[in-house]
Amino acid sequence: MIRRFVTGTPLDTEAVLHKPEPTDSAVPYFEKTERGFTYRLDKDDVVYGLGENVRGINKRGWVYESCCVDEPNHQEDTKSLYGAHNFLIVSGRERCFGLFLDTPGKVKFDIGYTHYDRMEIIMEDDSFELYVIDADSPDEVVHEFRSVTGRSYIPPKWAFGFGQCRWSYYTADEVREVARQYRENHIPLDMVYLDIDYMERYKDFTVDRKAFPDFEELVAEMKEQGIRLIPIIDAGVKVEEGYDVYEEGVENQYFCKDGDGEDFVVGVWPGKCHFPDMLNDEARRWFGHKYKFLLDKGIEGFWNDMNEPAVFYSEKRLKRIFEQLEKYKTMNLDVNTFFEFRNLVSTVSGNPEDYRSFFHNYKGQKIRHDKVHNLFGYYMTRSASEAFDELVPDKRILMFSRASYIGMHRYGGIWMGDNKSWWSHLLMNLKMLPSLNMCGFLYTGADIGGFGADATQDLLLRWLALGIFMPLMRDHSAAGTRRQEAYAFDDTQSARDIIGLRYRLIPYIYSEYMKAALKDEMYARPLGFVWGDDPIAVHVEDQLMIGESIMIAPVYEQNAAGRVVYLPEEMKLLRFAGTEITEERVLEKGHHYISVGLNEVVIFLRRGHILPLSSRAERVDQIDWENLELHHFADDGAVYELYDDDGVDREVTLEGHIRTLAV
Amino acid sequence: MIRRFVTGTPLDTEAVLHKPEPTDSAVPYFEKTERGFTYRLDKDDVVYGLGENVRGINKRGWVYESCCVDEPNHQEDTKSLYGAHNFLIVSGRERCFGLFLDTPGKVKFDIGYTHYDRMEIIMEDDSFELYVIDADSPDEVVHEFRSVTGRSYIPPKWAFGFGQCRWSYYTADEVREVARQYRENHIPLDMVYLDIDYMERYKDFTVDRKAFPDFEELVAEMKEQGIRLIPIIDAGVKVEEGYDVYEEGVENQYFCKDGDGEDFVVGVWPGKCHFPDMLNDEARRWFGHKYKFLLDKGIEGFWNDMNEPAVFYSEKRLKRIFEQLEKYKTMNLDVNTFFEFRNLVSTVSGNPEDYRSFFHNYKGQKIRHDKVHNLFGYYMTRSASEAFDELVPDKRILMFSRASYIGMHRYGGIWMGDNKSWWSHLLMNLKMLPSLNMCGFLYTGADIGGFGADATQDLLLRWLALGIFMPLMRDHSAAGTRRQEAYAFDDTQSARDIIGLRYRLIPYIYSEYMKAALKDEMYARPLGFVWGDDPIAVHVEDQLMIGESIMIAPVYEQNAAGRVVYLPEEMKLLRFAGTEITEERVLEKGHHYISVGLNEVVIFLRRGHILPLSSRAERVDQIDWENLELHHFADDGAVYELYDDDGVDREVTLEGHIRTLAV
Repeated sequence: MIRRFVTGTPLDTEAVLHKPEPTDSAVPYFEKTERGFTYRLDKDDVVYGLGENVRGINKRGWVYESCCVDEPNHQEDTKSLYGAHNFLIVSGRERCFGLFLDTPGKVKFDIGYTHYDRMEIIMEDDSFELYVIDADSPDEVVHEFRSVTGRSYIPPKWAFGFGQCRWSYYTADEVREVARQYRENHIPLDMVYLDIDYMERYKDFTVDRKAFPDFEELVAEMKEQGIRLIPIIDAGVKVEEGYDVYEEGVENQYFCKDGDGEDFVVGVWPGKCHFPDMLNDEARRWFGHKYKFLLDKGIEGFWNDMNEPAVFYSEKRLKRIFEQLEKYKTMNLDVNTFFEFRNLVSTVSGNPEDYRSFFHNYKGQKIRHDKVHNLFGYYMTRSASEAFDELVPDKRILMFSRASYIGMHRYGGIWMGDNKSWWSHLLMNLKMLPSLNMCGFLYTGADIGGFGADATQDLLLRWLALGIFMPLMRDHSAAGTRRQEAYAFDDTQSARDIIGLRYRLIPYIYSEYMKAALKDEMYARPLGFVWGDDPIAVHVEDQLMIGESIMIAPVYEQNAAGRVVYLPEEMKLLRFAGTEITEERVLEKGHHYISVGLNEVVIFLRRGHILPLSSRAERVDQIDWENLELHHFADDGAVYELYDDDGVDREVTLEGHIRTLAV
Repeated sequence: MIRRFVTGTPLDTEAVLHKPEPTDSAVPYFEKTERGFTYRLDKDDVVYGLGENVRGINKRGWVYESCCVDEPNHQEDTKSLYGAHNFLIVSGRERCFGLFLDTPGKVKFDIGYTHYDRMEIIMEDDSFELYVIDADSPDEVVHEFRSVTGRSYIPPKWAFGFGQCRWSYYTADEVREVARQYRENHIPLDMVYLDIDYMERYKDFTVDRKAFPDFEELVAEMKEQGIRLIPIIDAGVKVEEGYDVYEEGVENQYFCKDGDGEDFVVGVWPGKCHFPDMLNDEARRWFGHKYKFLLDKGIEGFWNDMNEPAVFYSEKRLKRIFEQLEKYKTMNLDVNTFFEFRNLVSTVSGNPEDYRSFFHNYKGQKIRHDKVHNLFGYYMTRSASEAFDELVPDKRILMFSRASYIGMHRYGGIWMGDNKSWWSHLLMNLKMLPSLNMCGFLYTGADIGGFGADATQDLLLRWLALGIFMPLMRDHSAAGTRRQEAYAFDDTQSARDIIGLRYRLIPYIYSEYMKAALKDEMYARPLGFVWGDDPIAVHVEDQLMIGESIMIAPVYEQNAAGRVVYLPEEMKLLRFAGTEITEERVLEKGHHYISVGLNEVVIFLRRGHILPLSSRAERVDQIDWENLELHHFADDGAVYELYDDDGVDREVTLEGHIRTLAV
C-alpha cells in the first residue's frame, strides 16, 4: 500500500509517474518535527536505501545529505555523493515500510548519528511530497515503489560486455592501441570510452580533429572489431564566440542566469562555461538533440558527466576570492589566519554560495538553482533520452550519468562516480549496488580498479572478480595514475580468465537484469532481503544475491588468501579458475572459510536453482545463447526462465522472450 | 645472527647502540640495484614491519616511503605517516630474516607494488648502514634486533590508565569540568591532556594566564583527585621579541638556519617560528632543560607534537606563492590552469622544497635538513628525555611523541598521530600496534574515537573495546568535531564498563608490557608470530595476541552484531559485560561467529594460561594488586609470572619484581 502526503506546493520532479491521491491523515510511524520527521529505531531495525552513498547496506549510524556533489575523494565521513536518492526502507521485527521524500532540494537523513536509536529527517524545503509504502518485506516495498516510478532503463545487450576507459586516450591511435592490446591478449572487450580529451578544447559536441582526424573511420573500424566507442558529454558549454552550441544557447536564452539576469559564468574543464538550463523544456529538447552530432558519426552510447553540476568556480566568486587573498600577503599567518587562507582556496569548488547564485526558468518561473539542485543531472540525461526517442526510435542507446535523482532511472543508468583505487571502495561498490537497485538504478557499477590513486595487480583482479557481476562493467582510471587496463600488469592471464567468465555469465546476467527491469524487481539483493528472519544474514554487508540463483562473496582485503562466507542455507560452491569450474561442493548452512586465489571466482548456487553458462566469447555479439551449460543444485530437478531478446529493440516485454530451461 | 653492512660514510643515527663489526660480504637474499636492493618474494612470504604506516600487518602490495609527515587525512594510498621505521621481517616457507636500513633520509619500500612478486628498496642517500638478522622465527628476529637498539621506554604506571584529550580544553574550568564529569559518572580516568591552547599564543614553555590563571593550583588540585595534566610541547619556537626561549635560541645560534645563514623562518601554530636545531648537541640540551618550566609546576608528563617537523609554510616560499598567485587573476582558468592554481595553495604545507631549504649544525657540520629529516622528532624527544635524567632522576616521566625513528623508542612512546573518526582507522590502530612493537615502540596507541571527523556512539564504544588493550589509551578529538568524551553520548554506562574493564586488566597489561620491555620482546603479536605454520593464522589481520595469555578479536564494522573469529587452537572465550564475566566457554580450533554487544568485550584465553584481573578501580593508584582473580584455561594447572613494581622508579629489572601466580 502506497500513501502519498503532500505538504505545501511542491514542484513536480516527475520522479513518480503514477501518483496515488494525497492522504490527509498523519504520516504513520513518524513524529513531525519543525523541519521534518523523527522515528524511533528499534534495536533490530535495519535501514536500507539512500541509493548512492557511503557506508553500509544498512545505513544506520551516520548522517547523510541528499545533495548531488562531485566528491572523488569520498571517505567514511562523507555525507553526499553524486546522486540524491531519498528512498529508504525500515525493516525490523515490528514492521517493514518504505519512505520516499520527493523534494529536489537538500534532505538530511540522521540515521542514528545524533542519537543511536533515532532517525531524523530534515528538509530544506517546506514543500515536499512524501510516500509511505507498507508491505510485508523489503522486496515488496521495492516492487511497489518501482511500480509507481516507472520502468528502469534498458541498455543495449552489448553494454553488458566489458568496457575500458581512461582519462584519457588522447588520440585515435591510443584508442587503436587499447583495442589491439585487448584483441591480441584475447581479453574480451565491447567498449572503449572516450573521456574529455576527444573534444576540441572540452567543447560538447565537437571532435578534436588534430587528435582524432578520422573520428568517423575510427568509430567504424572499431565497430568492425565489435567494439563501440562511448564518448563523454559534459554539463557545461564553453563560452566561445563562434561555437555553435554556445551561440545558439545565448541566442535562445537556453542557459542558466545569474542574479543580474546575465548568463551564469561557471568554470569547468574548458574554463568559462554556461550551464544549459536543463529544467527549461525547450532548452532541454535543444540540448538533447545535440547528441545527433555524434549519433551521426556512428556513436551508440554516451556517458553524461559533471552534471551535479560540478562547479570548479563561479566567475564572480573567484574574483572576490582573489581580492580576499590580498590581505593575507602581509599577515603573520598563524593557526587561525593560515587555515582561513588555505580554506579560501580549497573551498573554491562546489561552493554552496555558487549554487545559490544562479537560476532556472522552470515553466516560466524563475527558480534559484539550490532549490532544484538534485534534478540537474536527472534532467540532463532525460534531455538526451527523450531526444533518442525521436532520433533513433528503433535502437537502444547506451546512456549513463554521474549525477542522478530517482526518476532518472527511466532514462539511463549511472556509474558510481569517481572513486579511488582503494580496497574500501571495492567493498563500497558491492554495498552500493543493492541500494541503487532499490531506487530503480539497475544499470550501474563502479570504476573497476578505482579511478583516482594507483591500482595494484591484486586490487584490479579482486575488483574484476566483483565487477563481473555488475551490470555496468568498466575499468577506468584518472590522468596521472598508474595504467590499469586488464593487460597492464604482469598477470594478464588471470584478468583474461576473470573477464572471460563475465562473458560466460552474460546470458544469466542479462536475463536477470531484464527480468528485474520488466518486473520492477531487484537485480542484486542484500542477504536480509532473502533471509530476513536470520539475524546473521541481515547483518551481512559483504555478500550479495545476484539474481535468483547465485550468491557472491568477493574477497576485498589485500593479501587475503580467502575469506569467511556465511551461508544462510545449504548451497553449492562453484569454483572457477581459468573460466572453467575446478571445484563443485555442497556446503552446509553456516560460516565457512573459503580460499580464493587471485585467479579464481567462487559462486554459491542456491538449492533448486540453475546457473546457465555460455561458452567463451570475446564480444557480446559472439555469445552462443543456444548451447548453454546448465549448472545446478537441484537433485529433484529445477527450471530457469531465461530471458533473451535481440538486444536492440526498445519495445520489450517478458512475453515472447522467456525460454524455460530445465534440469 | 646480526650482520652489519656499511655503505659510504653514513651519519650515526644512534638507532643501534650495540653495533656488530661491519661485514664485507655481499648482502644476503637481496640483489643490489642502482639505488638499493631487490628481493624476489615467494608466494607464501609475509612481510611484517615498517612500524607506523598504512595498510596491513602484512605490508605486501603497496609502496611505502619512510618520511615523517604530518598526514592527518591518511588513506589507503598514503605512503608515509608520522614516523619512519625502516625495519621489516620477511617470514616465509624458505626463510625468516629481518632487515633494518639505518639512514635518516627517505627510503622507498616497494613491496609487491610495481611487481607483485618483487620487493624493491630504494634509498635517497648513498651512505647507509644495513642490518640483516637471521633467526628461526619473527619473534626471534625482533628479539635480536631489539637487543642491539636498546631497551624500550618505560612510562610511569599511572600512564597505563585512561586519558582524555581534546584540541582543546581552553580554560582551567573546562579541565575541571572534564574531571568532574568523569568523577561523577564514575568513569575511570588518570590523565587529562592539554593541547596547544594552554600556552600563551602557542609559545612553548609558557602558560596562558588568562585561560589558566591558577595553573599550578589546577595541577595540584587534579593530582589530589588522582588525575595528571599532560601538556603538549611543539617543535616550533615563536619568533617574538622578549620571549625568553626565542631570545636565547637566537643568541646562542640554537635554531636551524636557512640558505643565507639566517634563522629559518617557518610558519606553524603561532605563525612565524624557528626550529630548535635538535641535531646540535648543545641546542638539544638547552631545549630539553626548558621542560623544567612545567616540571616545576608539578607536571609529570608531556607529548611532543609537530616534530616531523610539520611546516605550514616557510616565509620565503610563501612570499613566492603569493607572487605566483597574481598571474591567475586574469586568466581563463581551465582544467590545467585551475588545478595549477589550486595546487599552488594546497601544496603550501609540508612541501619538500621547504625541507631542502634549511640546515642543521651536526657536530660542527652543516647538514641540509632533508638528509636527516627523519631524526628530528627522535632527537626532540631525546632532548627532553636526557634532560629528565638530570632533572628528575628518581621518577619516570610520561613522554610520547608524534614523529619518531627507531632509537627514539628508548626515550619515549608515540601515539599513532592524528587520525580520523573512521571505522577503518579503528582497524588500522589494531594493525599498527604489532608493527610498532617490532621496532621497539611499546608505549603506543591511537586516538580513540578518532581525532578528525565526527565520532558516533557505536564507533567510540567499539574503539574503546580495542583501546583497553593499548598501552597508551587516550580519547582525543579535534577542534570543530563532535565531542567524544566517554560521557558525551547517550550510553555512558557502556563506556564506563569498558573503561572499567581496562582498569581490571591493568595488572596483566602492565606486567606484559614490562616483561616485553625488559626482555626485548613483543607486547602484541600478529597471529602469524605464534602460529607461523597455520596458513590461515598468518593471514589474519584483525586479531592480535596481547601478551602471553590472551587473544583479542575486536568488532570494527559498524552495525555488526558480532564477527567471525579464527581460533588457531582451542581457546576459552571470556565474555565481559558490565566489567564482569557473563560467559565462559571453550571453543574448538577454527572459525566461529561470536556475537558481541556494544557494551561487551570478548577475550580468548590460551590453554595453559592465566589472566589475572584486579577488582574495579577508578585510578591506577587504587588498583589492588594483591587480590587478583585468576581466570584460566588450565585444567592441569598453570602459572603466570606477574611483574609489578612501584611504577615510579626508573631503575627497573625483572629481578625482584616477579611474583608467580599459580592455579
